[in-house]
Amino acid sequence: MNFELQLKVQDLNVRYAQAIDDNQLEAWPDFFTEDGRYRVTTAENFERGLPLSMIYATSRAMLRDRVRSLRDANVYEAQRYRHIVAPPLLTEDKGRGARARTGFLVARIMHTGETTLFASGRYEDHVVLDDGVARFAEKVVILDSRLIDTLLAIPL
Amino acid sequence: MNFELQLKVQDLNVRYAQAIDDNQLEAWPDFFTEDGRYRVTTAENFERGLPLSMIYATSRAMLRDRVRSLRDANVYEAQRYRHIVAPPLLTEDKGRGARARTGFLVARIMHTGETTLFASGRYEDHVVLDDGVARFAEKVVILDSRLIDTLLAIPL
Amino acid sequence: MNFELQLKVQDLNVRYAQAIDDNQLEAWPDFFTEDGRYRVTTAENFERGLPLSMIYATSRAMLRDRVRSLRDANVYEAQRYRHIVAPPLLTEDKGRGARARTGFLVARIMHTGETTLFASGRYEDHVVLDDGVARFAEKVVILDSRLIDTLLAIPL
Repeated sequence: MNFELQLKVQDLNVRYAQAIDDNQLEAWPDFFTEDGRYRVTTAENFERGLPLSMIYATSRAMLRDRVRSLRDANVYEAQRYRHIVAPPLLTEDKGRGARARTGFLVARIMHTGETTLFASGRYEDHVVLDDGVARFAEKVVILDSRLIDTLLAIPL
Repeated sequence: MNFELQLKVQDLNVRYAQAIDDNQLEAWPDFFTEDGRYRVTTAENFERGLPLSMIYATSRAMLRDRVRSLRDANVYEAQRYRHIVAPPLLTEDKGRGARARTGFLVARIMHTGETTLFASGRYEDHVVLDDGVARFAEKVVILDSRLIDTLLAIPL
Repeated sequence: MNFELQLKVQDLNVRYAQAIDDNQLEAWPDFFTEDGRYRVTTAENFERGLPLSMIYATSRAMLRDRVRSLRDANVYEAQRYRHIVAPPLLTEDKGRGARARTGFLVARIMHTGETTLFASGRYEDHVVLDDGVARFAEKVVILDSRLIDTLLAIPL
């Protein structure tokens, strides 16, 4: 086990989750490399090898567009998220980066105060060092449930 | 990243959560320094800079009083808590201590067995070494939801 | 604090949880030593010193039988689990192994997509090095709630 790498990836995950939970959406694209890929799918689709995705972006620029749309739609203001991310399991580590598999739960807190367990799943990430900073070259969000809320526009 | 400090703060958080979850309330004040501050507020109040707090204590003695009241009121026996605390994000580290921001979820298990997602939020902590032991000089509990249960008397 | 041991036990816990959550049940017994003990009980029973258990197995072979029954009953297909396991608190470390106390939450995702907070509790584990691999010589699952779902047959 490479403990330093383990803790670096964990730190990246925690900063990623806190940026979203603190409504610092503009910082979200910077957790990805310039040509980083971001995909949200379900375990059912993923396991059957289906290319279906709820969200699929292939660059930081696309993620920035997404944030702009969310801000315009004002959808984010009505709710908060709270991610709890498990320690990552590093499944690979060659040369530039690491493959990490990481379980997560997300609670959603509506403006009314109502709190629900909103999503659960795992991240399948490719983490690289980009100018010395750990970033996602790829982040696949695999949701356990196939029930997709219409508000999924918000990053997971 | 200072990995040792990271793991020390994480260890403090885990011991803190387990003491509460195991109903070792009498040990709770000892996680704070003698003049440690403990505050529970909402994200809404916190972000607006409002000084409103659900709980505000400015010493270990006040926390001990609080535990005594809880025991007298017998309120703790009717339920259990289960904290899941994310890894801390250390945002500062000068001289004596560290600032840590830490996400958490709390499940509440009623005597009947019913389990609900009770609270979510983040800790904004100031952790110091107090005679070689890591303790909270300040712990601010910032709840995501503004719906406050009347049983909030119990530590978060 | 022995940070390396801390991270090794955490890694064991994460791999354990992911094997179950990924429906790799056949790998589950291998997280235990040949004569490893696995017990599921409630906090209420545990604190009263009652020997009652929902599940009690005293060898890897018994766990293998259990997995076979679950596969035959086809019970696992209808749902997914998502464990979120807190960092472990090592309470002992002499010679061959460590005692670890670890909080957890488990979400259950039904085939319909419905997600609920299914279980919470703590593990009281005895972790040993078995031919250089960290394994459970004993794992006691102590559930916070006394409401036991009939589907508890599935590993926690």
